[in-house]
Amino acid sequence: MKAAVLFKTGEPLRVIDNLVAPTLIRGQIKVDIIYTGLCHSQLMEAKGLRGEDKYLPHLLGHEAVAKVKEIGPQVSKVAIGDIVVLGWIKGEGIDAPGGIYTYNDIKINAGSVTTFSEESIVSENRVVKLPEGMPLQLAILLGCALPTGAGLVLNQLKPKEDTNIAIFGLGGIGLSALITTTLFKPNKLIAVDIEPEKLELAKALGATHCFNANSPTYLEEIKELTSGGCDYTVEAGGTCRSIEAAFEVTKEQGGECIFASHPKEGEKISLEPHAFHRGKKISGSWGGNSYPDSDIPKLVNLYKEHNLPLDKLLSASYSLDDINNALNDLDERKITRALISINPQLDPINNS
Amino acid sequence: MKAAVLFKTGEPLRVIDNLVAPTLIRGQIKVDIIYTGLCHSQLMEAKGLRGEDKYLPHLLGHEAVAKVKEIGPQVSKVAIGDIVVLGWIKGEGIDAPGGIYTYNDIKINAGSVTTFSEESIVSENRVVKLPEGMPLQLAILLGCALPTGAGLVLNQLKPKEDTNIAIFGLGGIGLSALITTTLFKPNKLIAVDIEPEKLELAKALGATHCFNANSPTYLEEIKELTSGGCDYTVEAGGTCRSIEAAFEVTKEQGGECIFASHPKEGEKISLEPHAFHRGKKISGSWGGNSYPDSDIPKLVNLYKEHNLPLDKLLSASYSLDDINNALNDLDERKITRALISINPQLDPINNS
Ligand SMILES: [Zn+2]
Ligand SMILES: [Zn+2]
Repeated sequence: MKAAVLFKTGEPLRVIDNLVAPTLIRGQIKVDIIYTGLCHSQLMEAKGLRGEDKYLPHLLGHEAVAKVKEIGPQVSKVAIGDIVVLGWIKGEGIDAPGGIYTYNDIKINAGSVTTFSEESIVSENRVVKLPEGMPLQLAILLGCALPTGAGLVLNQLKPKEDTNIAIFGLGGIGLSALITTTLFKPNKLIAVDIEPEKLELAKALGATHCFNANSPTYLEEIKELTSGGCDYTVEAGGTCRSIEAAFEVTKEQGGECIFASHPKEGEKISLEPHAFHRGKKISGSWGGNSYPDSDIPKLVNLYKEHNLPLDKLLSASYSLDDINNALNDLDERKITRALISINPQLDPINNS
Repeated sequence: MKAAVLFKTGEPLRVIDNLVAPTLIRGQIKVDIIYTGLCHSQLMEAKGLRGEDKYLPHLLGHEAVAKVKEIGPQVSKVAIGDIVVLGWIKGEGIDAPGGIYTYNDIKINAGSVTTFSEESIVSENRVVKLPEGMPLQLAILLGCALPTGAGLVLNQLKPKEDTNIAIFGLGGIGLSALITTTLFKPNKLIAVDIEPEKLELAKALGATHCFNANSPTYLEEIKELTSGGCDYTVEAGGTCRSIEAAFEVTKEQGGECIFASHPKEGEKISLEPHAFHRGKKISGSWGGNSYPDSDIPKLVNLYKEHNLPLDKLLSASYSLDDINNALNDLDERKITRALISINPQLDPINNS
C-alpha cells in the first residue's frame, strides 16, 4: 500500500508504494483511511522540532476518518465496516502499541495511531465510531482540532456570558475555540493572528475585533479595548512568545489564560511573577481535557444544533502524493488545516 | 517622637528624634508601637529594588503589635488602650490613607500602615485586636509572616495527608508555612535553603529532609526522593530562580507550586510550557489569601492548640536605634526575621 514516511527529520516525507502492514495483535484495528487532517504537530515532527527522533523511519498523522477493515484479538468497540474517527487522545478500549511495518527490508515504525497511509493499524482506544450527521470531510476535525480547541472552551475555560475573550493563533485549534466561544455570547471576542486572511475568516466566524500580532502596539490596544485585560485568553499560536502575549492581556484579579501550544522542545515561557500575585491564572491544555468517547458525540451534536461553520477550517485539499505541498503550505501559513484525501471512494457521499 | 525614615534608597535609614504626626482624619488610628518585625519587603524597599520610589522620604514597616492611643473620626473597630496587631493585608474597616508627618520643615510620607516609629498613624482596616493567649513578641508575626506563610497552606494549598511537600526559602514566611504543613502529616517534608543553620532549624521544626540549594544536584535528588516530584511545593526564597526550582520539582499530573516571593521589579520566571500540559500547576500568593479579621483569631488558636514553636522564627532583637543592623543582618541572611523593640514597657509581661 501507499504511505508517506518520515525517513529523516528536516527532509520531505517520502511517498512509498509498497509498505506492508503486520498481522494484528490484541487491541489493534486495521482501517482504510478515507480522509486525514494534517496539523502543526506533524509539521513540527517532520522538521525535527520535537527534539531527537528515536523512531525514524516512521509513519505519522493523528486525525482521520476511516473505515474498519479488520479487527484484532479482543477488540469489541467497533466492527468491520464501521466508519470511525481516529485521533491522538486516548479513550475507551485496549491501549495497543503501533504496528511495525516493513518497506523492502526496512522496518517502519508507527505509534498507536498514524494516518498518512492507505491502510493503518490503530489502537482500539484511539478510535470512536462516528455518530450520524456530520460529513466525513469535516469529521477529521474530531480527531484533534475540535476536541482540543472546542474541548478547551467547553471542559476547561467554561466562560461566563458577556465577558471579553481573546483567541491567539487562528489555526484549526484556535478557530475551533473561537467558534465554540461564540456559543457563550461574549461581549468582545478578539482574534489575533499575523495573517490578514485568517483575521478576515475569524471576523466571518464571529470575532468582534481583530488584531494583527505584527503590530507593535496591539497588546496595548487590546488592554485599552478591554479596560485592562481579557477575562479569558485562549492561546494556540504555537510559540512561547504567543503564550506570553496572551498572558500579558489577561485581566488581573481572576483572568484566565489557557494555552494549547506545544512550542519547540527546550523553549521556555517568561512570565512576570507579580502578575500571579495580582491574580492572573495560566494553565496548559492537553487535548482540551476531552474524553473522545463522550466528547465526540457531544461535538457532533453541537455541530448539528448550531450549524457550526466547520467547513471554514478546512481551506485546502490534497492527495497523499501531494502531502509535502500540504506541509509546505501549512508551514508558510497559507492554509489553516489541510485535508488529505486518501480513499475518498469510501465516503458514502461520493457514491450516492 | 523617634522614627527610622528612608530618605534615599540604597542608603541606611535615618533615625530621627523629632518627627511630628498630623491630626487624625476619618478612619485613622494613632498607636504606640510596642514591637515591630522587619522582613524582606522593607529590605527591598530600602535597597530600591521595588522600582522607582516616588514617596521619598517615607516611613516603612508593615507588621507590629501596638497599643491604641487615639482614634480618629468614625473608627469603631478598636478603642483606646486595646492591644492590636498591625499588618499590611486589608481587613474590615475604613480604608484610610497614611498620615503625612513632618520633620523640621520636611514632609515625611507614610502608607496606610507603617511601624518603624514610636507612634504611628494607621488605617482602621490594617488593625485587628489581638486575641488572648499569644505573647506580644510572637504576635508581630500575625501582621505578615503567619497570614502569608500559614495562610498559603491553610487557605490555598490545603494539602492532603501523607503527601510530599517541599518548602523553598526558610525565612519567616517559609518557616511559617513549614510549621503549618506539619499539621497535615506529610509523608516527606522537604526544606530547601542555602544557609546550613536554617536547614538545622527546619529539621528541628519537623522537616524530614533538608537540601542546600547551593548543591548542583539537589533538584535531581529531590525528584529521586519523591519518585518524580513533590505533590506540593511552597516557595518563599525571594528570587525568580527559586520559583523556577520549586516548579521544577513539582510533580507532573496534578502537582501544585505556590510562590509567595515578590522578586525584583522587572525580573521574570522562565517556565517550560510542556510542564503545564503534563499537569503541573503554579500560582502566586497574595498574603496567603488571608482575611485578617477572621484569620488572625484562627492562627492564634492554632498556635495555642498545637503549641507551635513560633519563637524559633524570631532569631534576634534590636532597638529602633539599631534598625540598620537588623536590615544588614537580614540582608546577610544571618537572621530569619528581626524583632525591633520600640516601647517594650507597654508589653504587660514586662510589668507583671
Ligand atoms: Zn493535531
Ligand atoms: Zn512582610
